[in-house]
Amino acid sequence: MVTAGRTLAQVSEASLLAEIFPFFPAREGVLVGPGDDAAVLVSGGSVVVTTDAMVRGRDWLDEWSTAADVATKVFTQNVADVAAMGATPTSLVVTLVADPATPADWAVEFARTLGDLATDAGVAVAGGDLSSAPSGTVMVSITALGDLRGRAAVLRSGARPGDTVAVHGTLGRSAAGLLLLQQEAGARGETDGARGACVAHHLRPVVDVVAGAAAADGGATAMLDVSDGLLRDGSRIAAASGVRLALDSALLEPDLVVLREAVGDAALESVLAGGEEHSLLATFVGTLGTLPPGWRPLGRVEEGEGVTLDGVAQQPRGWDHFAG
Amino acid sequence: MVTAGRTLAQVSEASLLAEIFPFFPAREGVLVGPGDDAAVLVSGGSVVVTTDAMVRGRDWLDEWSTAADVATKVFTQNVADVAAMGATPTSLVVTLVADPATPADWAVEFARTLGDLATDAGVAVAGGDLSSAPSGTVMVSITALGDLRGRAAVLRSGARPGDTVAVHGTLGRSAAGLLLLQQEAGARGETDGARGACVAHHLRPVVDVVAGAAAADGGATAMLDVSDGLLRDGSRIAAASGVRLALDSALLEPDLVVLREAVGDAALESVLAGGEEHSLLATFVGTLGTLPPGWRPLGRVEEGEGVTLDGVAQQPRGWDHFAG
Repeated sequence: MVTAGRTLAQVSEASLLAEIFPFFPAREGVLVGPGDDAAVLVSGGSVVVTTDAMVRGRDWLDEWSTAADVATKVFTQNVADVAAMGATPTSLVVTLVADPATPADWAVEFARTLGDLATDAGVAVAGGDLSSAPSGTVMVSITALGDLRGRAAVLRSGARPGDTVAVHGTLGRSAAGLLLLQQEAGARGETDGARGACVAHHLRPVVDVVAGAAAADGGATAMLDVSDGLLRDGSRIAAASGVRLALDSALLEPDLVVLREAVGDAALESVLAGGEEHSLLATFVGTLGTLPPGWRPLGRVEEGEGVTLDGVAQQPRGWDHFAG
Repeated sequence: MVTAGRTLAQVSEASLLAEIFPFFPAREGVLVGPGDDAAVLVSGGSVVVTTDAMVRGRDWLDEWSTAADVATKVFTQNVADVAAMGATPTSLVVTLVADPATPADWAVEFARTLGDLATDAGVAVAGGDLSSAPSGTVMVSITALGDLRGRAAVLRSGARPGDTVAVHGTLGRSAAGLLLLQQEAGARGETDGARGACVAHHLRPVVDVVAGAAAADGGATAMLDVSDGLLRDGSRIAAASGVRLALDSALLEPDLVVLREAVGDAALESVLAGGEEHSLLATFVGTLGTLPPGWRPLGRVEEGEGVTLDGVAQQPRGWDHFAG
């Protein structure tokens, strides 16, 4: 590798690209890949598009997150947004804006991991952009595209009284993992048990790329991915749909069992307010017992507004990008 | 305006978005716009996608460029890439990653200009992302989508001996404008004559969003936009197509007349090596006289390699993002 042990400033753009391009193999559905002015992709009657960036020092710390971790997180954030529309992720473009003093190996590891994740998920890396940034700044951004394959998009606004509220995946693990990293110097290396699972989820959240489309086929009426916390994201569905989401704490028990072991008393708050989880939260027509595989109930949709837990109104809490 | 006179840190993300969203009106072809997990767009059988970022201090200086200038430049860069495939730009998503100390007015002016440009060009602003950055960093990025509307994409590899080399738009003005800005403190305010035209082109390059599709319909065999200079970009067509581009200096005269007035002896080098122009460079089947409206000949395609000027081989020269 010409890049080994060097900074981005010490390798040419061309040699870096030559090392990175093989991680992004040609795929079915890509008519023109990286290397021309733009990529050209096969498309159905509609295209789903979303974009999400991560910034070093804000969205990750180098002390905790490797380049592979960052690639996993930014991939999952974007692909989960596509899946949450009921679409199948098909392709992405990627941007790296980095201080020239950044090790070239960081960029190579980032690209290799992104290529591996995309390949495993059947997603094409169709293009990208590389720019230099002021000292200290490293930013990665993805725009992901998806295909609804004839389905109607599942919006946040479709929940109706009588629907079941359900989740695909875990809740609270990312927040609990962050708490462990903040509290304990050695938490980064923890791999076993509940604590290891939480730290791993915070650093490398995963998403089932077909769960969103399966939910759409299985009667999902509203859906999003949990990026800002169950209460805050749930209140978004409630507001957009003009309904109340009535959660049942007994149905959160599978998450709480793990989180009590990992973070004790912070378990409930992690489940209710923890962001960056990227599990899918949806409402489904009808009552329990009719959910697609991998989904489990959390409560039901009622007339009203906001989110309740065991009948008690909950204040949404979460994250603002610029404030404080 | 709640944002007037404040920094991004002093306004909430929600209030900033509330002020920005009206600049991005609903458009035909947008099934789901900003506000859900992802946007959903009507699409033909294929979708063209490209992404390009700009970083303060690298790609623009606040002393020279307003937020409106930056919006114009990043819009043009992306839309020109889509047009250069022979496609019609249809939509975009936009990312702003900014130091919280950035004036909120900067973000609002950026968004307003982007919305105006997109509206004029028939391009939908379908979504975006907003993140905070380390002190001093401001970065904007666009991913633009386009529709080939049944056409085959015009690649860099399709030029054949006997084709005509042609350009749509100007050459060298952006480089000449940069030179004027670097040499003279007051050049930013210059608006008249050749010098004003060059400064304006550097700060606010424009693109004809339909020229690329019209070229594809008019027999373009290879095409790209001039982002790194006539010689460097011309050599890319030559290499991808396995041909020589033979340029005729007499045909550069319309550009040279203006540039001599603006930058004197630097005129020829500006035309040959000046980047960021974003005019379209293409090859067309056949000889002079058959070009679509707005295109003018620069020379012809021959057997061989590289780029020549009046028969003399030219060394491509240009720009590397991380080096020096």
